[in-house]
Amino acid sequence: MRVLAVDPSLRGTGYAVLEAASPTANGRSSALAATPLKARACDYGTIKNKADLLPSSCLVAIHDRLAELIHKWEPDCCAVEGIIFVQSHRTAITLGAARGAAILAAAERGLPVYEYAPREVKQAVVGRGAADKTQVAFMVRALLGLTETPSPDAADAIAIGLTHFREQFSPLRKVTALARI
Amino acid sequence: MRVLAVDPSLRGTGYAVLEAASPTANGRSSALAATPLKARACDYGTIKNKADLLPSSCLVAIHDRLAELIHKWEPDCCAVEGIIFVQSHRTAITLGAARGAAILAAAERGLPVYEYAPREVKQAVVGRGAADKTQVAFMVRALLGLTETPSPDAADAIAIGLTHFREQFSPLRKVTALARI
Repeated sequence: MRVLAVDPSLRGTGYAVLEAASPTANGRSSALAATPLKARACDYGTIKNKADLLPSSCLVAIHDRLAELIHKWEPDCCAVEGIIFVQSHRTAITLGAARGAAILAAAERGLPVYEYAPREVKQAVVGRGAADKTQVAFMVRALLGLTETPSPDAADAIAIGLTHFREQFSPLRKVTALARI
Repeated sequence: MRVLAVDPSLRGTGYAVLEAASPTANGRSSALAATPLKARACDYGTIKNKADLLPSSCLVAIHDRLAELIHKWEPDCCAVEGIIFVQSHRTAITLGAARGAAILAAAERGLPVYEYAPREVKQAVVGRGAADKTQVAFMVRALLGLTETPSPDAADAIAIGLTHFREQFSPLRKVTALARI
């Protein structure tokens, strides 16, 4: 199973394509660090848009890069972070637009799209919902055996992808925690 | 000049394709109702998405319908309503996603995209920023000489398109009021 995981934002969208083999039948633990799940990163990075690029052009860049990744890696589904708190109404709408461009790239190729609450992602990867970005990056590096620490945006995307695998493969998973959007 | 005007929302996106001939040289008035601008509606309506359609599929429907309209009518630009106040953070992100899908459809075809504040749109069409939906629908019907009153979503889109023409053609226009996004 392959997932395209995305942490959308207008100027720096984190993405990751992760691959997992189905876990063995005794994979019953609730925390990722302890599951027998084998996951590997096919690709990850950040879609950076310069500050002087028009917002509408940023949306095209986000959409087109993700469409390229979908074409190249043929993931089975897409996972995005759920609604996060941002400072202002304007920021929420801007973030929503970046999120829309990302979801659209997946949905128009027929991929099911799932969302996970930020706390759920941190809980799954670090073991506590209030973990900071450094801890998330450290843990995803360890969990995937990466030779470098990913950038914060890419690390967030990787964490979202790992959360999706946990939800998909854990026999203890609460189905309500997995929201298809 | 042709504009594709859009009032995006996940379940009911209003759209309008309007056409204007350049006004005569003495077109100096500041309110649309008094300009010599000749505008006509090529097309308008609402992209309705049923309540049981997944949000990701709604985004595809919005994007694809607008892409069709752009292909058919070949507008020169796109105009959308600016940031409006909504009740919650979640609603703002959902609205932002619908807006993103609409802006993307225009931007990926190379159309410049402009946004107008809701008050500015009402001011341009009705003459006061606090006008209600009924007044907007009544005025756009009168201004375009339509034989029916458009639905509220379509009327809002028509009003956005008329505002764009006013900003483009009025010699008194404040360039700051026209934001390219």
